[in-house]
Amino acid sequence: MDANPTPTLQDLPIGLAADAERQEFDSMGQMRVPGDRYWGAQTQRSLQHFNIGDDRMPKAVYHAYGYVKKACALVNHAAGRLPEWKTNAIVRAADEAIAGLLDDHFPLYVWQTGSGTQSNMNVNEVISNRAIQLLGGALGSQHPVGPNDDVNMGQSSNDTFPTAMHIAAVDAFDTKVLPQVGALCDSIERKAEGWMEVVKIGRTHLEDAVPLTVGQEWYGWAGQLRAALADVAASRAGLYELAVGGTAVGTGLNAPAGFSQDVAAKIAELTGKPFVTAQNKFAAQGSLDAMVRAHAALRGLAVALMKIANDMRWLASGPRCGFAELKLPDNEPGSSIMPGKVNPTQCEAMVMIAIQVLGNDTAVAFAGSQGNFELNAMRPVIIKNVLHSAGILADGCEKFRLYSVEGTELNRARIQQYVEGSVMLVTALSPVIGYQNAAHIAEKAIADGTTLREAALASGKVSADVFDQTIVPLNMVGKGLAGA
Amino acid sequence: MDANPTPTLQDLPIGLAADAERQEFDSMGQMRVPGDRYWGAQTQRSLQHFNIGDDRMPKAVYHAYGYVKKACALVNHAAGRLPEWKTNAIVRAADEAIAGLLDDHFPLYVWQTGSGTQSNMNVNEVISNRAIQLLGGALGSQHPVGPNDDVNMGQSSNDTFPTAMHIAAVDAFDTKVLPQVGALCDSIERKAEGWMEVVKIGRTHLEDAVPLTVGQEWYGWAGQLRAALADVAASRAGLYELAVGGTAVGTGLNAPAGFSQDVAAKIAELTGKPFVTAQNKFAAQGSLDAMVRAHAALRGLAVALMKIANDMRWLASGPRCGFAELKLPDNEPGSSIMPGKVNPTQCEAMVMIAIQVLGNDTAVAFAGSQGNFELNAMRPVIIKNVLHSAGILADGCEKFRLYSVEGTELNRARIQQYVEGSVMLVTALSPVIGYQNAAHIAEKAIADGTTLREAALASGKVSADVFDQTIVPLNMVGKGLAGA
Amino acid sequence: MDANPTPTLQDLPIGLAADAERQEFDSMGQMRVPGDRYWGAQTQRSLQHFNIGDDRMPKAVYHAYGYVKKACALVNHAAGRLPEWKTNAIVRAADEAIAGLLDDHFPLYVWQTGSGTQSNMNVNEVISNRAIQLLGGALGSQHPVGPNDDVNMGQSSNDTFPTAMHIAAVDAFDTKVLPQVGALCDSIERKAEGWMEVVKIGRTHLEDAVPLTVGQEWYGWAGQLRAALADVAASRAGLYELAVGGTAVGTGLNAPAGFSQDVAAKIAELTGKPFVTAQNKFAAQGSLDAMVRAHAALRGLAVALMKIANDMRWLASGPRCGFAELKLPDNEPGSSIMPGKVNPTQCEAMVMIAIQVLGNDTAVAFAGSQGNFELNAMRPVIIKNVLHSAGILADGCEKFRLYSVEGTELNRARIQQYVEGSVMLVTALSPVIGYQNAAHIAEKAIADGTTLREAALASGKVSADVFDQTIVPLNMVGKGLAGA
Amino acid sequence: MDANPTPTLQDLPIGLAADAERQEFDSMGQMRVPGDRYWGAQTQRSLQHFNIGDDRMPKAVYHAYGYVKKACALVNHAAGRLPEWKTNAIVRAADEAIAGLLDDHFPLYVWQTGSGTQSNMNVNEVISNRAIQLLGGALGSQHPVGPNDDVNMGQSSNDTFPTAMHIAAVDAFDTKVLPQVGALCDSIERKAEGWMEVVKIGRTHLEDAVPLTVGQEWYGWAGQLRAALADVAASRAGLYELAVGGTAVGTGLNAPAGFSQDVAAKIAELTGKPFVTAQNKFAAQGSLDAMVRAHAALRGLAVALMKIANDMRWLASGPRCGFAELKLPDNEPGSSIMPGKVNPTQCEAMVMIAIQVLGNDTAVAFAGSQGNFELNAMRPVIIKNVLHSAGILADGCEKFRLYSVEGTELNRARIQQYVEGSVMLVTALSPVIGYQNAAHIAEKAIADGTTLREAALASGKVSADVFDQTIVPLNMVGKGLAGA
Repeated sequence: MDANPTPTLQDLPIGLAADAERQEFDSMGQMRVPGDRYWGAQTQRSLQHFNIGDDRMPKAVYHAYGYVKKACALVNHAAGRLPEWKTNAIVRAADEAIAGLLDDHFPLYVWQTGSGTQSNMNVNEVISNRAIQLLGGALGSQHPVGPNDDVNMGQSSNDTFPTAMHIAAVDAFDTKVLPQVGALCDSIERKAEGWMEVVKIGRTHLEDAVPLTVGQEWYGWAGQLRAALADVAASRAGLYELAVGGTAVGTGLNAPAGFSQDVAAKIAELTGKPFVTAQNKFAAQGSLDAMVRAHAALRGLAVALMKIANDMRWLASGPRCGFAELKLPDNEPGSSIMPGKVNPTQCEAMVMIAIQVLGNDTAVAFAGSQGNFELNAMRPVIIKNVLHSAGILADGCEKFRLYSVEGTELNRARIQQYVEGSVMLVTALSPVIGYQNAAHIAEKAIADGTTLREAALASGKVSADVFDQTIVPLNMVGKGLAGA
Repeated sequence: MDANPTPTLQDLPIGLAADAERQEFDSMGQMRVPGDRYWGAQTQRSLQHFNIGDDRMPKAVYHAYGYVKKACALVNHAAGRLPEWKTNAIVRAADEAIAGLLDDHFPLYVWQTGSGTQSNMNVNEVISNRAIQLLGGALGSQHPVGPNDDVNMGQSSNDTFPTAMHIAAVDAFDTKVLPQVGALCDSIERKAEGWMEVVKIGRTHLEDAVPLTVGQEWYGWAGQLRAALADVAASRAGLYELAVGGTAVGTGLNAPAGFSQDVAAKIAELTGKPFVTAQNKFAAQGSLDAMVRAHAALRGLAVALMKIANDMRWLASGPRCGFAELKLPDNEPGSSIMPGKVNPTQCEAMVMIAIQVLGNDTAVAFAGSQGNFELNAMRPVIIKNVLHSAGILADGCEKFRLYSVEGTELNRARIQQYVEGSVMLVTALSPVIGYQNAAHIAEKAIADGTTLREAALASGKVSADVFDQTIVPLNMVGKGLAGA
Repeated sequence: MDANPTPTLQDLPIGLAADAERQEFDSMGQMRVPGDRYWGAQTQRSLQHFNIGDDRMPKAVYHAYGYVKKACALVNHAAGRLPEWKTNAIVRAADEAIAGLLDDHFPLYVWQTGSGTQSNMNVNEVISNRAIQLLGGALGSQHPVGPNDDVNMGQSSNDTFPTAMHIAAVDAFDTKVLPQVGALCDSIERKAEGWMEVVKIGRTHLEDAVPLTVGQEWYGWAGQLRAALADVAASRAGLYELAVGGTAVGTGLNAPAGFSQDVAAKIAELTGKPFVTAQNKFAAQGSLDAMVRAHAALRGLAVALMKIANDMRWLASGPRCGFAELKLPDNEPGSSIMPGKVNPTQCEAMVMIAIQVLGNDTAVAFAGSQGNFELNAMRPVIIKNVLHSAGILADGCEKFRLYSVEGTELNRARIQQYVEGSVMLVTALSPVIGYQNAAHIAEKAIADGTTLREAALASGKVSADVFDQTIVPLNMVGKGLAGA
Repeated sequence: MDANPTPTLQDLPIGLAADAERQEFDSMGQMRVPGDRYWGAQTQRSLQHFNIGDDRMPKAVYHAYGYVKKACALVNHAAGRLPEWKTNAIVRAADEAIAGLLDDHFPLYVWQTGSGTQSNMNVNEVISNRAIQLLGGALGSQHPVGPNDDVNMGQSSNDTFPTAMHIAAVDAFDTKVLPQVGALCDSIERKAEGWMEVVKIGRTHLEDAVPLTVGQEWYGWAGQLRAALADVAASRAGLYELAVGGTAVGTGLNAPAGFSQDVAAKIAELTGKPFVTAQNKFAAQGSLDAMVRAHAALRGLAVALMKIANDMRWLASGPRCGFAELKLPDNEPGSSIMPGKVNPTQCEAMVMIAIQVLGNDTAVAFAGSQGNFELNAMRPVIIKNVLHSAGILADGCEKFRLYSVEGTELNRARIQQYVEGSVMLVTALSPVIGYQNAAHIAEKAIADGTTLREAALASGKVSADVFDQTIVPLNMVGKGLAGA
C-alpha cells in the first residue's frame, strides 16, 4: 500500500509545532485536531462525544498497549508482512508510549465504547503519526504508516484491549500491590516478633476473653495479609493468558497462523513476565472473567486490611477513655476544635480504601456479568476499577506502614492492668473444677466487683494453691501460632 | 487576641510571590510549605502522610466550604464575636473559595482523616493566610486572622464538613443531575410523542409478544426516568438539614446560642436554597444517612438508565442480523478491524456509568454503616462517591441525549415486518375462542412456519371474517399509557 | 364457554381426598399431579423443572394474589363479563388464599420464570380447581371455571404479578417493618429521656472527645431510626401504584376499558390501603423501579441499625477490659469454653441482619437494572429479597428491643470516671486562651499522665478560678438535641 | 466428674417419649424444653431470643459439626482424657448427627450469636443428652456426659464453628457445585463439538461482526465455565485449613499439646478429604478470609453463568421477531394471557440465581471485613450465604443442563441467512484493499441496502473473482479455539 519504499527514520524528539489545528480523517470523513497532538480523527470524535466526568482511561493502559503494538509489529515483520523501516518506526513510537513519553497524547475518557476501540485507535493514530513524523511524512495522511493497516495489522481492539488490560494489571500487581503489601507484612511481623512475650487480654465479641500475647495478635494480622497476598499473586495466572491473536471475534481472522503464540511470546520477552496465549480465545474475548477473579483477590486483601486497621484503631482508642493498649504515632493535630486531640487517621484512610475497593468490586463483578456473544463490552469500567483498587491499596499500605504501623508502641501498663483484672482467666479452672462451677465463680466476681481470686476462693471449689498454680496468664498463651 | 485593631483590607489579587518555601506552624510544631501556596502546616502534614492514589477531595467540597466559612463569619460578627475588619477579610477569602479562585490551594487527597478535618483545616489555613495577606500581615503567623480561633470560630470539622458535603451534593443535584436528566426525559418524550401511532411488536422475556406502539415504549422509558428524577429531587430534603452548630459532638460546645439556626439561615440566603438546621445534631454528625439515601436516589436513576440504554442498543442491534428496529446515529467508526462497523457506544457508556454508580452505591452504603459514637468517620469516601456518581450520571445523560437519543430514527420497514409476522397476535382471539384453542393455533403456526391467519383458519375455530376483524394490530395497542 | 349455567356453590371445606394422582392438562398436554393438591398441570411442570435450592416463593405473594384475583373477578362481574355464580366461587377461593388457608397448594420455587407466570398460574389453577370443587365439577376439567379464561380473565402475569408484589410488600411494611421499628424507636427514646442528664464523654474517631449526655447519644440513635422509618413509609408511595390493567405488555389488551382503575379501586377497598392504578403501565411492567426504591429504604434502615447496634456493643464491651459504659442484659451464656462470659448477641444478630440486607440490596438493584423491553423478568428474585429483608429487619428489631435495648442499664461509675479523666474538656478553654495554648496544655497532660487541671495550671495560661468555672462538664453539653 | 464408671451403651433408637416438657439447666439456671427434643437450656434460650425470620442454620453445618465432635472425642480418648465408654457414646451420637438423623433437634436461627456458639451448644447439648440416653442416664442431668466438659472437651465455639463451616463448605463444593457445573460443562462441550462446522455470524457490541462457528461460540462458554470451575476447586485450599485446636482465642488453652494436628488428621481420615490444621490460629479465628475467597470463586462462576444464560436466551429470542438462532426446549406454556408463548425460563432462573449470588457475595465480603480482635463474629451470616450460593448454583446448573442446554437445537436456516446477509464479511477484504476502502464499501452497502458483493463490485476496488475467493465464510472462522 505504500508507494515509495524505505523512507529513513530520523531521530526527532517528541513534539509537534503547535499550529492551531490539523486535518485528520477516518472512514467517516475529516476532523480538525489540535496541531500539537499526535492523535487523529477517531480520538477527536471520542473526545467530543464522550466528555463525561473526570475519569480518563488510565495511562497504564497505554503503556501496556505500547508493548502490544511493539510485539505485533515485530511479529508482523518477522512474518514478512511489515517492512523493516516501518517496523522500526512503529517500534520506536511504541517504546515511547511504553516509557510514558506520549502520555499527553492519550486523552480519552473511561466512559467510551465498551470495547476500548477508541483507546486502541488513539494508540494506533498516535503511533501512526509519530512514525510518520519520524519517517518524514505528512501528519494526518496515514502514510506511510497507517493506523489501521499498519499499526493495527493483524489486530482488533477486541483482542488487543484485553491484552493491554492484562499487562497493565499484572504490572500494577507486580510493581505496586505485591511489594507494598509485602513490606507491610514484613513490618507487622517485625513488630509481632518483638512482642511475642507480652501477655495481653484477648477479646472475642468485643468482650474480655482469655489471654494471648501481643505478638500472637500481630502475627494473626500478618497471617491474614500473607494469605491475601498469596491469592493476589495467584490471581495473575489468569492474567498471564492473552487474547491477542483472536482479532475480531476470537477466530483470528486477518492474522497469520501462529500470530497468537508469537505475539504472546514476544510480549513475555519484552516484559519479562510469563505471558502466554489464551487457549480459548472465545472465552478470552467474550468474557473478562480473569479480571473479575483478579479483583476478587484485591477485594480479599481489602477485607483483611479493614479488619487489621479497625483492630489497631480500636486498640489505640483513648487516650483516657478507650482500650488504649496501643499508642499510634502522633502525625498531625486531629481536630479543628478540640486542642491536643490526635486520631487514628491512617487507619481511617485504610478503612475507607477498603470500602472503596469493595464498591469497586461490585462494579467489576457486575460488569463482568454483562458480556454478550463474542465481546464483553464493559472493559473500560473494569480496567478503571482494577487499576484504581490496585493503586489505592498499594499506596495506602505504604502510608499505613510508614506512618502508623512502624511507629506504633505499646502501653504496657494498661495491657498488664487488663490481664490482671480480667475474670475470664477462670477458663483455666474449667478442666479442674468443671465448666459450671467455673461459670458461677466468674458470674459472682462480675456481679460483686471482686477479683477472680477472691471469688474463686470464696466459692470453696478451689484452694489458693491450686488457683495460684492454675491462673498464670503466661502459662495460658500456649506457644507460637498454631494453637494446641 | 489581636493586638492592634482595625487593620485595613487591601484589594490584592490572589497569588503569592513564589519564594521557595515558607515556615508555618501548628500545635505540633513547624512545617515548611511551598511559598506560592496559601496553605499551612496541617495541610502540608496531610499531603505528606496521605499521598495515596490520584483521588483528590473534589473541588466542589471546597466551594461549598466557602459558604460555610462565610456564613459563620457573618453570624459571628453579628453576634459581636468577630470584628468587622476580620469578618470582611474572611468573607472576601471565602468568596474567592466559592468562586473556585483558590482551587489550586486545596490539594488534599480523599484518603485522609475520616472526619474531613484536614480539608477543613486546609480551608481554615488558606482563608487565614489569604486574609492575613489582604490585611497586610505575615503569612504563617496566624495573625491577625487565625485558622482555628477566627476562621473556624464556633465550628468543628465534625459539624462543618457534613454541612459542606450537603451543600456540594445539593449543588451537584441542582446544577447537574436534575437538569440533565430532565433534558433527557424531555428528549425521550418528544420522540415518543412523534411515534405514538407506530405499531410495533412487544417483547417479553425477549420473546415476541403482543403489539404496542413505539411511542408507548419510549414513554415507558420516560416514565421510569421521571419517577427516578422525582426521587432524586425528593432526596434533597435530607440534604437540606445542616449539622453546623453541633460543633465537636453535637452539643454545640463553643458555639453561641442560636448559632445553628443563624448559620443555616445565612447559608440558605447565600445559596438561595432551603437549607435549615438539623433538629438532631447527634444523628446529623454520628451518621451520614441522608447521604446514603441521596445516593440511593442516584442509584435508582442508574437502574432506570441501564434498562433504557440496554433496550435501545438491543433494538438497534444489526444492521442485518439483529432486531434492527432503531437506527442510532453513526458517531464514529466502531472497529479497528471491521470496516464500516458502527456500535451503540453511547448506550455502552451509559451502561458502564450505571454499573459504576451501583459500585459506588455499595461503597456509600457500606461507609454509611461504619460510623461510631458521635462521628461517622467515613466522610471523604462518601462525598467522593456521591459527587462522582452525580457527575458521570449528569454528563452521561447529556452525551447520551445529544449523541444518541436525539438522532435515533426508526426502521419502519423492519418494525412493520415484525408486526405482520408475529404469532402472538393470537392473544386477541382468546376472549373469542378461549385460551386453549388459541394456544393450539399459535403452536401450530410456529411448528409449521405458517402465518397466524393460515393456522387459525385451518383450525376451524375461527372464520376468516372474525379473524380479520379481531387481528388488527392497531386495535390491539389500546390508547395512551395507562392500560385498559 | 360454560354449557350449563348456574351451578350451585356448595359450602365444602378445603381439602381433597388423597387419591394417588390426578390428571390435569394445559395447552402442552396432560400432567399427573398429586391427588390431594388443587394445583394443575403448569404448577406441576414448574415443580419438576425448577426444583432448585430451598427458596420457595413467599406465601405472602399468594395472599396478595388472592386480593388481585378477587378484585378482578368482582370487576369482571360488575362489567357483565363473569356470571355471579362463577364470581362467587372465585371470590370464595380467593378469600381462602388471602387467609392463608391454601398455602399448602402453592409450592413453587423462587427460581422459576422471571415474570412469575408460574406462580400466577399456580394461583389460577388452585382457585380454578377449588371453585370447581365448590361448584361440583370435575377437578382438572377446567370447567366450569377455567384457570386462564375465568380466574385470569382480563389479566396477564405481567401486570398481576407486580401488583401482587406491591401488595405483599406494602403489607410487610405496614404489619412488620413500620410497627417494629417504631416500637424500637419508642423504646430507645424512653431510655434516652431518662438519661438526659447523665453526662458522659463523647468519642469521635473512637478517641476521647468533649462530653454529651447519655440521653443525647441515645436520641441520636433514635433520630437516625426516625428518619429511616420516614423513608420506609414514604417509599410506599411508589408501591401504591399498581400495574394491573396493563395485561401483557402495558396496553391492556383483552381487558375492558376502565379495568385498571376499577381493579385498583377494588384492591384499595379490600385492603384498606391507598392503592391506585399506575399512570404509566409501560414503566410499571418494564421496570421494578418502585421495588428497588422501596428496598433502598430498607437498606437505609439497615445502615442506621448497624451503627446503633455497633455503638451499643462497643459501649458495653468489657466487663473489665472495655468501654463498659453500658450493661446489656445477660440473656444466655456466651461461650462454650469461657465460663461466665456473656456477649452482646442481640447486637451481633442485628449487625448480621444489616449485612444481609445490604447484600439483598445489591441483588435487588442489580435485578432492577436487568429488565428488557416490555418486562423486567427478574421479579421472583426481587420480591424474595424485599420480603426477606422486611421480615428479618422487623423481627430483628423486635428481639433487639425486647432482649437488649429495654434491659440495658448504665454503669454510672465508669461513665463518671471517664468524664473526670478526659483531657478533651480542654476544648472549653479555647475561647478563653486560644486553640494553640489549649492544645499545648492537653498535649502536656497526655504526655505526663497528669490531670487536665494540673497541666492547665502548670501552663500559667489559666488560673485555678477560671479553670474551675470553665471546665464544668455539665455546662458543656448544651441543651436538647439541636446543638448551639 | 463421673461418679460411677463404665456405664453400658445401649442400642436405643433415636427418639424421646414426648412428655410435655423437660427441665434443663445451664450456668444461668433452669429452662423448660420440649420433652421430645434432645436439646438443652442454651438451645432453648436461643430459640426464644432469636426467633427472627425463617432462616435456620443450615443442617449441613450440623452434619459437619458431627465430624468435629467425633474427631475430638476420639483424639481426647486417645490422649487418655475421655474414657472409652464415654467416647463410644459421643461417637455414636455424632455419627447420627453426621447422617442427618438428628436434624429435627437442631432448630436454631441464623440470626444468633456471631460466633455460632449457640449452634455449637445445640450440638453439645443434643449429643450430651443422646449419649446420656444411650448410657441410661437422666436427660438434662448433664451426667454422665456433659455438654461442656465432655462433648466440648478441648474445644471452643471459636475454633470449632469455623471448622464446621469449612467442612460443610467443602462438602457442598464437592458434592454439589463441582459435579453439577462439571456436568454442565460436559454437556455444553458435547453440543459444541457437534456444531464445530456450523458457520454463524459473530456479534460484538450486539452488532453484526465477522463469522465464527456455533461450536466455537459454545466452546467459548464452556471455556468460561472450566476456568470458573478450576477456581472453585482451587478455593478449597483455604478451606482445608481448620481452626480446631485454637480454642477460645487461638492459643489452644485447655486443649492438650498436639490436639490441633491430631483432630485435623482425624477429620481428614473421617471425611476422606485433605484437611490440615491451620498454621496460624489467630488468623483462622480472627478472620473468615478463606470463606470470603471461596465465595469469590462462586461469584466468578455466577458471573460466567449469567453471561452464558443471557447469550442463550438472546440467541433464542423470537420465534419470529428476534435472533432466533437457537431453539430452546418447550418446557411449559409461558404466558397466562398469550397463547402459545414459550419463554427461556431456565435461562431466566439462572440469571436470577447469578444475581442472588452476587448479592450474597456482597454480604459475605462485608461480613468478612467486620471481625474484631480474636474473633470474626459474623459467622452465621457467612456460612448461610456460602451454602445458599453453592446450593442454588448447583441445582440451577443441573436444571439448566437438563431442561435447557441438552434440548437446545439450531435454527440452521436462520443462522445461514444471517451469514449470507452480513456486511461485516468485508473485513476479509481489508488486507487486500486496505481498511478505508473496505469501510466505504460496507458503509455503502448498509446505506443502500444492497448486498456486500454488489457494493464491493460497484466500488471498483475489487474484482468479482477476488471477492468470491476472499469472501468465503467458512474460510473466515479459523480453526479450533486458540485464534490465529
